[in-house]
Amino acid sequence: MATVVTPMKKLLNDPEQVVKESLTGLAAAHADLLRYDADAQIVVRADAPVQGKVALVSGGGSGHEPLHGGFVGRGMLDAACPGAVFTSPVPDQMLAATKAVNGGAGVVHIVKNYTGDVMNAGAAAERGDDVQSVAAVARRVNERARSFGIALSSCTPPAAGKPIFDLPDGEMEVGIGIHGEPGRRREPLGTAHEIATLMVEAVLADLEPESGTRVLPFVNGMGGTPDLELYVLYGEVDRLLRDAGLEPTRRLVGSYITSLEMAGASLTLLLLDEELTALWDAPVHTAALRWEA
Amino acid sequence: MATVVTPMKKLLNDPEQVVKESLTGLAAAHADLLRYDADAQIVVRADAPVQGKVALVSGGGSGHEPLHGGFVGRGMLDAACPGAVFTSPVPDQMLAATKAVNGGAGVVHIVKNYTGDVMNAGAAAERGDDVQSVAAVARRVNERARSFGIALSSCTPPAAGKPIFDLPDGEMEVGIGIHGEPGRRREPLGTAHEIATLMVEAVLADLEPESGTRVLPFVNGMGGTPDLELYVLYGEVDRLLRDAGLEPTRRLVGSYITSLEMAGASLTLLLLDEELTALWDAPVHTAALRWEA
Repeated sequence: MATVVTPMKKLLNDPEQVVKESLTGLAAAHADLLRYDADAQIVVRADAPVQGKVALVSGGGSGHEPLHGGFVGRGMLDAACPGAVFTSPVPDQMLAATKAVNGGAGVVHIVKNYTGDVMNAGAAAERGDDVQSVAAVARRVNERARSFGIALSSCTPPAAGKPIFDLPDGEMEVGIGIHGEPGRRREPLGTAHEIATLMVEAVLADLEPESGTRVLPFVNGMGGTPDLELYVLYGEVDRLLRDAGLEPTRRLVGSYITSLEMAGASLTLLLLDEELTALWDAPVHTAALRWEA
Repeated sequence: MATVVTPMKKLLNDPEQVVKESLTGLAAAHADLLRYDADAQIVVRADAPVQGKVALVSGGGSGHEPLHGGFVGRGMLDAACPGAVFTSPVPDQMLAATKAVNGGAGVVHIVKNYTGDVMNAGAAAERGDDVQSVAAVARRVNERARSFGIALSSCTPPAAGKPIFDLPDGEMEVGIGIHGEPGRRREPLGTAHEIATLMVEAVLADLEPESGTRVLPFVNGMGGTPDLELYVLYGEVDRLLRDAGLEPTRRLVGSYITSLEMAGASLTLLLLDEELTALWDAPVHTAALRWEA
């Protein structure tokens, strides 16, 4: 069957205004958690600056919701700098965000390749760690985590109005980024078991954990893959990790870092230790994630 | 452009086993919250039966995740009976679930048309209300809530392997159910503002709330609509409700009752009162929702 360009059908007013309007809606829904400064184009924790707390700022292109605005709040980010869809934010935003959240204890800029950086370092900042310690936690999480993703479809950025890449029927893109960057290779679409095996082997080959290590598998949906399928994948990942002698003691399953409505999933595996486990369990209150100790 | 049947690209092993495998994954991920009885085909709260607490059982076809298994846990359901994709569960499942969760205070079967029934009645059961009171809360929520949904695309059930209905380019289905049931009418795809207006007018015409009423708008994604767009829609809904003299004091935005990867959204509006607000705020700990008081 031929690959077809699907015309855009999206719930929006003006493609050029989608990010501003979406953040206005986010702020209307979660005024207790955050505010949106439309002039500076930043999302800031409602109680910022928190005096004496190391502040965390991150950001990136829009289209990956709930990243980043959905992670602003207690235990995670103090501010987020959202760019246009799949477009980086600009330095003026970073500067405005840094000034808005500076509580006197330092500001850490998270240039992320893994959301776990935000989650764990956020808890370290919240409990009052100093700026060097918070940055060290972020680096440690980064060193102890690996991700591997696959895509089953492209997505359609609102302003472009058409899919950003073609993926022929029956094929998947293996080793993708979150903007439809070409992956390592294209392969025939595998079963959930085969895809889980590919992902687990890739991250374990890189991390080389000792048998018995406690791990946090994060099965992330890219936006267009239903929870029904994500839990099929998680079931396979959980079994494969146990077969490899590892112990999944924490986990996260859901669409937390997306590429609009792209179909696909990624696995991030974090090697836990006692401190990282405690930081993971620490309270979080954001639009996208919320739990108590 | 012609409407095209997209071939199935899904993350699964065997379409016939997708529900069982997904629930196995759910149980692997959330063993602290729930267990999955694959013989009886039920998902049961881990600490069931809770002695002296009214138990809540609901269920329905799969493909609407996180409904229902994702809502099993403290403050919500005691058990869920999942049918095949878009197919009702069978009486044997209801009976097995009822027996598994019966803590001596009665079991309420929630045959729902609104998730708020589950959320509010769950809190009433959790705080120790008797079975008549719990059922009365569910009925009151039902009377005080209305929903209205639209679809921008069909979805593809795993076993069927092709979309269940056609929706021509540039059109939306207005007044849908969650299985692709035909809606009230088809219309040219509107802007987010126009769609929000349609939804708000429909629910307000039915509910006829007094000016100043506190309300809970629930903007629900059908699965294939990104959060980016849902928050655009929420922003419009919030403004329209305020313009109508209402006060949105609680809200929920996200994809909680889905139709696989269908694009679209629904608005449910609940007229709050003091008791329903307190019940909404009560602690919840499930796979899909989690908060403390």
